[in-house]
Amino acid sequence: MMQNSQQQAYDRGITIFSPDGRLYQVEYAREAVKRGTAAVGIRTPEGVVLAADGRLRSELQVAESVEKIHKADDHLGVATAGHAADARRLVDMARRRAQVEKLRYGEAVDTETLTKAITDNIQEFTQTGGARPFGCALLIAGVDDGGEPRLFETDPSGTPYEWKAVAVGGNQREAQDRLEEGYDDLQTVDDGLRLAFEALAATADGDLTPEGMSAATIDAETATFEALERSEIGAHLDEHGLLDEGSESDEE
Amino acid sequence: MMQNSQQQAYDRGITIFSPDGRLYQVEYAREAVKRGTAAVGIRTPEGVVLAADGRLRSELQVAESVEKIHKADDHLGVATAGHAADARRLVDMARRRAQVEKLRYGEAVDTETLTKAITDNIQEFTQTGGARPFGCALLIAGVDDGGEPRLFETDPSGTPYEWKAVAVGGNQREAQDRLEEGYDDLQTVDDGLRLAFEALAATADGDLTPEGMSAATIDAETATFEALERSEIGAHLDEHGLLDEGSESDEE
Amino acid sequence: MMQNSQQQAYDRGITIFSPDGRLYQVEYAREAVKRGTAAVGIRTPEGVVLAADGRLRSELQVAESVEKIHKADDHLGVATAGHAADARRLVDMARRRAQVEKLRYGEAVDTETLTKAITDNIQEFTQTGGARPFGCALLIAGVDDGGEPRLFETDPSGTPYEWKAVAVGGNQREAQDRLEEGYDDLQTVDDGLRLAFEALAATADGDLTPEGMSAATIDAETATFEALERSEIGAHLDEHGLLDEGSESDEE
Amino acid sequence: MMQNSQQQAYDRGITIFSPDGRLYQVEYAREAVKRGTAAVGIRTPEGVVLAADGRLRSELQVAESVEKIHKADDHLGVATAGHAADARRLVDMARRRAQVEKLRYGEAVDTETLTKAITDNIQEFTQTGGARPFGCALLIAGVDDGGEPRLFETDPSGTPYEWKAVAVGGNQREAQDRLEEGYDDLQTVDDGLRLAFEALAATADGDLTPEGMSAATIDAETATFEALERSEIGAHLDEHGLLDEGSESDEE
Amino acid sequence: MMQNSQQQAYDRGITIFSPDGRLYQVEYAREAVKRGTAAVGIRTPEGVVLAADGRLRSELQVAESVEKIHKADDHLGVATAGHAADARRLVDMARRRAQVEKLRYGEAVDTETLTKAITDNIQEFTQTGGARPFGCALLIAGVDDGGEPRLFETDPSGTPYEWKAVAVGGNQREAQDRLEEGYDDLQTVDDGLRLAFEALAATADGDLTPEGMSAATIDAETATFEALERSEIGAHLDEHGLLDEGSESDEE
Amino acid sequence: MMQNSQQQAYDRGITIFSPDGRLYQVEYAREAVKRGTAAVGIRTPEGVVLAADGRLRSELQVAESVEKIHKADDHLGVATAGHAADARRLVDMARRRAQVEKLRYGEAVDTETLTKAITDNIQEFTQTGGARPFGCALLIAGVDDGGEPRLFETDPSGTPYEWKAVAVGGNQREAQDRLEEGYDDLQTVDDGLRLAFEALAATADGDLTPEGMSAATIDAETATFEALERSEIGAHLDEHGLLDEGSESDEE
Amino acid sequence: MMQNSQQQAYDRGITIFSPDGRLYQVEYAREAVKRGTAAVGIRTPEGVVLAADGRLRSELQVAESVEKIHKADDHLGVATAGHAADARRLVDMARRRAQVEKLRYGEAVDTETLTKAITDNIQEFTQTGGARPFGCALLIAGVDDGGEPRLFETDPSGTPYEWKAVAVGGNQREAQDRLEEGYDDLQTVDDGLRLAFEALAATADGDLTPEGMSAATIDAETATFEALERSEIGAHLDEHGLLDEGSESDEE
Repeated sequence: MMQNSQQQAYDRGITIFSPDGRLYQVEYAREAVKRGTAAVGIRTPEGVVLAADGRLRSELQVAESVEKIHKADDHLGVATAGHAADARRLVDMARRRAQVEKLRYGEAVDTETLTKAITDNIQEFTQTGGARPFGCALLIAGVDDGGEPRLFETDPSGTPYEWKAVAVGGNQREAQDRLEEGYDDLQTVDDGLRLAFEALAATADGDLTPEGMSAATIDAETATFEALERSEIGAHLDEHGLLDEGSESDEE
Repeated sequence: MMQNSQQQAYDRGITIFSPDGRLYQVEYAREAVKRGTAAVGIRTPEGVVLAADGRLRSELQVAESVEKIHKADDHLGVATAGHAADARRLVDMARRRAQVEKLRYGEAVDTETLTKAITDNIQEFTQTGGARPFGCALLIAGVDDGGEPRLFETDPSGTPYEWKAVAVGGNQREAQDRLEEGYDDLQTVDDGLRLAFEALAATADGDLTPEGMSAATIDAETATFEALERSEIGAHLDEHGLLDEGSESDEE
Repeated sequence: MMQNSQQQAYDRGITIFSPDGRLYQVEYAREAVKRGTAAVGIRTPEGVVLAADGRLRSELQVAESVEKIHKADDHLGVATAGHAADARRLVDMARRRAQVEKLRYGEAVDTETLTKAITDNIQEFTQTGGARPFGCALLIAGVDDGGEPRLFETDPSGTPYEWKAVAVGGNQREAQDRLEEGYDDLQTVDDGLRLAFEALAATADGDLTPEGMSAATIDAETATFEALERSEIGAHLDEHGLLDEGSESDEE
Repeated sequence: MMQNSQQQAYDRGITIFSPDGRLYQVEYAREAVKRGTAAVGIRTPEGVVLAADGRLRSELQVAESVEKIHKADDHLGVATAGHAADARRLVDMARRRAQVEKLRYGEAVDTETLTKAITDNIQEFTQTGGARPFGCALLIAGVDDGGEPRLFETDPSGTPYEWKAVAVGGNQREAQDRLEEGYDDLQTVDDGLRLAFEALAATADGDLTPEGMSAATIDAETATFEALERSEIGAHLDEHGLLDEGSESDEE
Repeated sequence: MMQNSQQQAYDRGITIFSPDGRLYQVEYAREAVKRGTAAVGIRTPEGVVLAADGRLRSELQVAESVEKIHKADDHLGVATAGHAADARRLVDMARRRAQVEKLRYGEAVDTETLTKAITDNIQEFTQTGGARPFGCALLIAGVDDGGEPRLFETDPSGTPYEWKAVAVGGNQREAQDRLEEGYDDLQTVDDGLRLAFEALAATADGDLTPEGMSAATIDAETATFEALERSEIGAHLDEHGLLDEGSESDEE
Repeated sequence: MMQNSQQQAYDRGITIFSPDGRLYQVEYAREAVKRGTAAVGIRTPEGVVLAADGRLRSELQVAESVEKIHKADDHLGVATAGHAADARRLVDMARRRAQVEKLRYGEAVDTETLTKAITDNIQEFTQTGGARPFGCALLIAGVDDGGEPRLFETDPSGTPYEWKAVAVGGNQREAQDRLEEGYDDLQTVDDGLRLAFEALAATADGDLTPEGMSAATIDAETATFEALERSEIGAHLDEHGLLDEGSESDEE
Repeated sequence: MMQNSQQQAYDRGITIFSPDGRLYQVEYAREAVKRGTAAVGIRTPEGVVLAADGRLRSELQVAESVEKIHKADDHLGVATAGHAADARRLVDMARRRAQVEKLRYGEAVDTETLTKAITDNIQEFTQTGGARPFGCALLIAGVDDGGEPRLFETDPSGTPYEWKAVAVGGNQREAQDRLEEGYDDLQTVDDGLRLAFEALAATADGDLTPEGMSAATIDAETATFEALERSEIGAHLDEHGLLDEGSESDEE
């Protein structure tokens, strides 16, 4: 990024425009997303896949606690990248919103409606003073009424994007390249999981270990979110030759 | 733009006047509009045309999600340029306003009333502290009671402008020049669509691809907003020789 | 204007006094008025005249939309100069105020009362923090109960001035000089219109074109605001030899 | 005034103390008072006199609109100097206060009570953040219950002063000197008017013209505020040889 | 006072601590007290005495209006020094408080309770943002239930001090020295008045004039506040040889 | 830490992003945690162990008052590190929350729910203006319904982490290393206490003294928080050879 | 203290963290405590002792008014050091809190509960913007239900400390050293008073005078706060040879 004194004048205090029409605080929040580990989402005809890498601060950390994939409703999952505490706040908001909609309208919220409620909120933090933008990106995956799989990204500016397959977080470019190469042949959720792990492997220096990873699927037919057990993740990595030899697969 | 230390004194913090009576934050918000892709609106005797170009961040992005044209009511459409998240907030406001007016007065809001409600709100963000201006422009098109086609622009200062044909966003000058050359002969909505695509082509380096584009019409007789299918857009581009040869017209 | 570092210390943030007792933000707001096109108001025994020049950003702009003269009530008109979005906000306030007074007291608001309500509001924005002054001037013209024509100016400090004839906006000095030379002989509203157009012509480099112009009268007898058709304006300009030869008088 | 960088540190943002215990924003507001034209008040056994000079921005300005003397209640008048819009706000406050007291207690407010209500408000603006001080001085004249004439000044710090005779505004020193020389012989209201005009003349470069001037008296016996007609002012000036020969005394 | 750039860092904006634990805004407010004229209070077995000097801005000022001694309740008086408008605000608070206590508890507020209510309020202005400290000191004198004379000082930090005899304001040191020399022999209120005038004389360059002075006593037996007539003050000054020969003792 | 002028631009005022996506105020709050003494938590099959070191400011300080371990509910304990006053505020919040949940749902709050309520609050202080982050870390230990021992850490960003064993505070790295070496063999709560004291010893320069230390256990079977007596702590230290010879073990 | 430009960046405006995790405004508030005179508290088996030194600004000041020891409830006393006005505000809070608890729960508040209510409030002022920390320390002494003497200190960060004996304020180190030397032999309240005076003497340059001093005891058996008469203080000082020969022991 460019770093001169001219720029400094526009990136402090509240979020304001620079002379060339940029919002630096939003761009810096995007850098916060890149500082985290990667997360990917893939839409297949059979359902949506979410997968994410995480970093353990010590071997004594409970791997499950590095949760980067969250169930937001029976038919909705969210993967996160970037500033973890900010992401948790948005995931909470997603859950509450899903519940409220269900209570109010008697039916499950659809993926796009939920996404836009979240991005409305994110945008507000970039325009009204007294707060900083959210330093995280969410991948919101769901299966809507009628069995349609959907996959959205929310970025720190508050813009929603819809994707067939997308990566966010650290080394995003490498993962997205892998997704673009491999997406065409996808048919099954299992295909999606394999491609997701390959994309995450592209963001890591060596092979992957299952300890910090998490993955989930939302089946198109049942419209049900299901998180993979860590052993299942290990089996997938093993099957596709992505397992780091030195990893402790016998971890709790 | 001029860029000296004198200027810097007046473009930070809240929106205040410079010694020569300018509001720099508003002018920078206009730069944000120019950073986006172009959108055009054209008023014809038969109805109003909106068309906009968009950028896909990857071939895996769902093209429909780069929506730059939105239906605000049966008889009202909005095209946007500039900071996407800001634009969405204003589009939401337009929709809610249209609904409220209909409920309150039992009839559809007319295009000018709606436009001015939006620009009132935009202006407020340029005068009262604690927030930045909106970094986007809207083209608000409608067919009012009696079949009159109308076309308005809202700019970041909160000023409404009415147009026969107008372009906003990146390379606006090139597109507006094309509109001025071609406007006189317009009779039909189809004429309008052709001129709109030609104007957008003038803002792009080469030919256009239908993937990132969107277009809609509001027919004067039926007063009904209709978005064009991407295939229809492709057909138009093809017919008028504006299609980029390398484009993947068989996309999804 | 003087431009040294001494001055800079007092013209930022909220509106505060400089060591010599000036309010720079208010003075800069006056500069914003001068950046706009001119407007003039003339009081004659037969009624009040308002006229204003406007700039079209393109030949495709709908000339009527550059409205610089607004009806505030049956007997009240407002011409504006300066930052257009700010002016619209004050015009809205004038309209609402006129309605409220009529509802509350069962009779039309008189011109001076309305003017002072507006200037009270303008003053507040120059003293209380969290906002900038209004960057516009209004000419408020009316015929009060008993047929008395009145003409007021509001300036960015929130001071009301009453005039026989006055010009505001760009090249104000040239227009005011013309008004001072020509005011003595005025008897009819038509005399007023001619002088108004002459004053505006003094602010323009060459002759005038009717496209960006607007004018209105408030007759003393009927106490009724009437806007001139663009063709009437063209006829006036033609009659008085003020018409720019190159202008497209056949404009819609 | 002294003008060094040491001082600058204490006169920005909210009103705070300088190391030597001064409030610069209040002192600058006093400078704003001196930037205006002068006003004088004189207490005589027969009643109180107010007179003020004003500047016309053009011969087309309605002289009455440069009103620097206002009736606040039947028995109360206010003359103002300094920032006109600020002064109007305080005059409004005085009027409302007088009405409220009358409604609440069934009798006219006395001059001192009213003055202190105004100065309380002025003081608040010098201590609490978020606003600047008032840049004006008021002379509040009244005849209280029992026929006692009173004359008060409010200054920008919010301090009330009572006077036998006082001048405020531009060239205040020259006017006050004249008042001190001439006060001893005063018996009648007419004596007061003459001295008032002489004091104003001392602040002007040459003789006076009645156009920008205003004057009023509050008779001790009737306790009634009466503004002088401009022709009466002209007659007074003429009688006392204060009339500028070049003045247009036949002005409407 | 020391005046270096190190210090400047801690005395702006809200009231905060300097590295050596000082509150500069409070210290500067104490300087504001010293900028005013002096006031003294003296407690004698027979009652409390208050006396204060004032400055007339012109011989035409009504001397009574430079009131530096105020009755707060039948048994309570307040003398002030420093920023006059701030002092008035606190005196008002004292009066209201005395009334409220009487209404609520059916008996007169005692001097210490009243003093502490005032200092609580003063302290708040030194700790909570958005306002500056009060630039004045009060001497609160009273005779409490049982005939006990009390004398308190409030300083700009919000600390109450109780005194046998104290001076505040300009040249405070000289006055306090005189009080310390002369206090021991005091028996009567008249003794107190003499010492008070001597202390004030020590703060003035030459002899005193009665015009700007004020004095009051609160008798221990009757617990009643009584202000001295200006003629009584003159008589006292004359009797004790403190009268300035050039003073106009026949002043109204 | 790096310390250049580039960095300074982003770590003042409210918490905002630096160009590389970091939140400096949060990172500095983490430094505040490291300035304190260490605390450790260890999860064993038999229950959870908390232990913490403290510093006595003088031998006359009551050692119990340096409480770094708090009971939050019958089944919940909290150890703290960092800015003590901030930590107390969060511990109070934990206690109130545990009570509220019990009242509302009729059952004890589980450890994870409580932890996330705390971290939600911590996050808010890092995003919304007007406050600084919390400069402390908490270890929240509990035994949930069904006898499951849980151990969480809250960090100044508002992120919750779950651990088998963890150290926070000064010399955290040394303590965590010891935990990683010794964790595998743990079976009993007593094993946990020994490892906890060894980890704390690794953060201290020499041997430990029981005076500033505190420890507690939450038994898995009884789900009951129990604080160790200082004599028990001394016995443990003695038994494991961690006792500082010079310590006053006969301390009250 | 260190004083470089690096530090200055973190100690202004609201209270924020420095890069090494310090809160400078809190540290400066501790300097404010050291600027005041000393106070000591001592816990003995027979009760708690409080003693404090004060400075008289003049021999005419009423010594009792320099009150540094306050009764908060029958069984509770508070000694203060540092910024006097801040301390008074906290003492008021302590008194109100003690009353409220008694009303609400029908029994006397215990010393620790009261202390923590105060420190909660102090902490809030160090974290939430818009105010500065309290520049004072309190010693809160009480005898709780069952006759247990307790002694707490509150510091400007909002941390409570419990002590056997402690000194705060100017020359705290010298006083604390004396307390540590002499504490072991203490049995009676009289022993405590002697040690307290010795500790205060260690903070003063020469011997002590009773005029500015205050002392109080809270007897363990009766749980009753009793302030010492100044003559009792003098007798103690005399008895222990701490009396300054030049002191005026016959002072009222």
